[in-house]
Amino acid sequence: MNNTQAIIITIGDELLIGQIVDTNSAWIAQQLNILGISVKERIAVGDTRDAIIEALSEAIPKADLILLTGGLGPTSDDITKPVLCSFFGGKLVVNEDVLAHVTELFRKRNRPIIERNMKQAEVPDNCRVIHNPMGTAPGMLFEQNGKWIVSLPGVPFEMKAMMTETLLPDFATRFGSTQAIVHRNILTIGEGESFLAERISDLEAALPAHIRLAYLPSPMAVKLRLTGTGTDEAALTKEVEHHRDLIAARVQNRLVALEDHPIELLLANALKKQNLTIGLAESCTGGYIGHKLTQINGSSAFFKGGIISYATSAKSDILGIPAAVIEKEGVVSEAIATEMAQAARKLLHSDIGIGITGILSADPYEDKSPVGTIFISVAGPGEIRAKKYQLHYDRVQNKETATQLALYQAFEFIRPE
Amino acid sequence: MNNTQAIIITIGDELLIGQIVDTNSAWIAQQLNILGISVKERIAVGDTRDAIIEALSEAIPKADLILLTGGLGPTSDDITKPVLCSFFGGKLVVNEDVLAHVTELFRKRNRPIIERNMKQAEVPDNCRVIHNPMGTAPGMLFEQNGKWIVSLPGVPFEMKAMMTETLLPDFATRFGSTQAIVHRNILTIGEGESFLAERISDLEAALPAHIRLAYLPSPMAVKLRLTGTGTDEAALTKEVEHHRDLIAARVQNRLVALEDHPIELLLANALKKQNLTIGLAESCTGGYIGHKLTQINGSSAFFKGGIISYATSAKSDILGIPAAVIEKEGVVSEAIATEMAQAARKLLHSDIGIGITGILSADPYEDKSPVGTIFISVAGPGEIRAKKYQLHYDRVQNKETATQLALYQAFEFIRPE
Repeated sequence: MNNTQAIIITIGDELLIGQIVDTNSAWIAQQLNILGISVKERIAVGDTRDAIIEALSEAIPKADLILLTGGLGPTSDDITKPVLCSFFGGKLVVNEDVLAHVTELFRKRNRPIIERNMKQAEVPDNCRVIHNPMGTAPGMLFEQNGKWIVSLPGVPFEMKAMMTETLLPDFATRFGSTQAIVHRNILTIGEGESFLAERISDLEAALPAHIRLAYLPSPMAVKLRLTGTGTDEAALTKEVEHHRDLIAARVQNRLVALEDHPIELLLANALKKQNLTIGLAESCTGGYIGHKLTQINGSSAFFKGGIISYATSAKSDILGIPAAVIEKEGVVSEAIATEMAQAARKLLHSDIGIGITGILSADPYEDKSPVGTIFISVAGPGEIRAKKYQLHYDRVQNKETATQLALYQAFEFIRPE
Repeated sequence: MNNTQAIIITIGDELLIGQIVDTNSAWIAQQLNILGISVKERIAVGDTRDAIIEALSEAIPKADLILLTGGLGPTSDDITKPVLCSFFGGKLVVNEDVLAHVTELFRKRNRPIIERNMKQAEVPDNCRVIHNPMGTAPGMLFEQNGKWIVSLPGVPFEMKAMMTETLLPDFATRFGSTQAIVHRNILTIGEGESFLAERISDLEAALPAHIRLAYLPSPMAVKLRLTGTGTDEAALTKEVEHHRDLIAARVQNRLVALEDHPIELLLANALKKQNLTIGLAESCTGGYIGHKLTQINGSSAFFKGGIISYATSAKSDILGIPAAVIEKEGVVSEAIATEMAQAARKLLHSDIGIGITGILSADPYEDKSPVGTIFISVAGPGEIRAKKYQLHYDRVQNKETATQLALYQAFEFIRPE
């Protein structure tokens, strides 16, 4: 038996004119995968009746579960509810539970409630209403020939709350698959995908048909993902991990981790495990390393803070690097990166300090060093390791890559031999 | 005549399992819109022959231009090239220009070239090859009954370079539309979309059929977008702007800007215009405000830097806030936010200082203040304005919102009356 196939339809003109980036679909796909439900397609369409109906009509024959997000707000451009209601041949009726919930929500936030908000309590009489604990727009679940069609708000935290509290448990019961999907990842750094592929070509050729290998390249790093499908989850996991271990052993010299975690989480976990703290002195990355580390829940256990020494005066006045040293070495230099790392450790009383300085883009106000030159230094109690990198991307990508490299270099620094 | 319709197809299992967020589609959609080309749908499918062919077969009848991204790499999971080649009935042949380019790229980066990389120079004999200045995978342009089908790599900076250098100018020539699309935006803050909608309902009702109004809500802010279509771009622009001005005047008390810029760019432009500099003292936002400001090209003209005073010791040791004041007021307080803003100004020699402190999520290591409480203070030469906010989201969304609010509060602070 094949596993359950899902299609995700996102609704909103903003998706078609590029005004927003869709992050909902990725999250939904992850959650469905955990239940053994495959996402067959993702489709984005505009806020028009024809577009919604066309997408739905094409999707229903192809999948068992259709998830729609967006277009459920209280304004006139939100048309998903009446379109679905008429598509499935129902009519809108007031739902007393939703009405009570919406009224309570406005009362709690001390806001007046208006007719337009009360309209949110009208739902099709031919659907199951899905409670929205975080907002006023209820979700809807329609059933047709055993297929489920679910409509959710596009606001990410509302959608996520409804999925987590209500829908994912129901999907597990209804579509709970005998077919398991197992993903395992191998994160490598420093070697291009074509060279990695060459080195593991015999292992790739030996993979059974139900295990696929994918290469996900990004600047400086390549993730290898093995995806297996099968009926016995435990046996499948063992089998996928066996192949993963073979590949990991082959690329040992480039291996960062076997977990599919972003590098900041790998670093955070390593710091916590060894009971170490970290402090930053960021120049060209402008606070991005600090941002990445503080995205992690409980980051105050290992993150002391940082100095964004963007202006040269901040490097001397706050970090205390002598002006003469800056003058002699140049702002973008290994010496300054190391001074920064040491100053961060000292000022923030942390075990580890990262210093990073570089030129991300040709900027009339900045230093005259070659664009893309970055120095990263990591300082610990008894050791300092500094490295120079030459990046070749645009400003935004150079910043992203520099941040990844700094996190990676700190991770390597504290990794036990 | 209707304007040109495009469909974007993104290829890659990583999109269907939620391993990556698709940012390419939004960028492509924006670029096409500028040329008057509408995106009708966006579709994401997996790395299988059947999925690619099905998506393509469904898309071609519906659109004039199909853009595919992804699946052009040198590894075995990259199958787009052979699939398209056979779909359009061609065969793969070595292209000497691409071969020379790939060889040169490896030579310049001092890397050995292997058979697998040379394969990148094989292209279908029935397509026009699109030069990839940033990488080894060439793009392909197929023509069928006057429709264009274009395949590009999924790596964002490669795709963008090829679009900008070659394809967008060619699209303009080929599909250069007599139909113009004009978007105008009104950015508001502090009032829910349903209340805004109520206040402008008569203006919305009076819009002509060729101008649509959309509401894009996010926590604390709502963007109103007017989209007009017509044949005379100058007249249409005037007409859309007339309606925009009517709505903007009505919501004057909530108006932030008429430009569709992120708030950091609005702030940066205002700082540069008034020749002001800014410095930060960030606690709960962990460097995110600094990151946002340094995403802007030329940020060193107005951004001096910041202190990420995450640990309490950093607030006293680096910012110089007396421990007794912290003890008395509590780390999360208006007094500390203001001390931080003033310290940032002083330490960074900036005209404006932002101080922000708060609790983003229930964290065993953090302060015991209510989750979501944030204090933001902005200090200038002769004035300080502090505000308290209570946010209701999860950690990541609270951080995003707190950062937006801080940038907005600084923008308001320096805005001329």
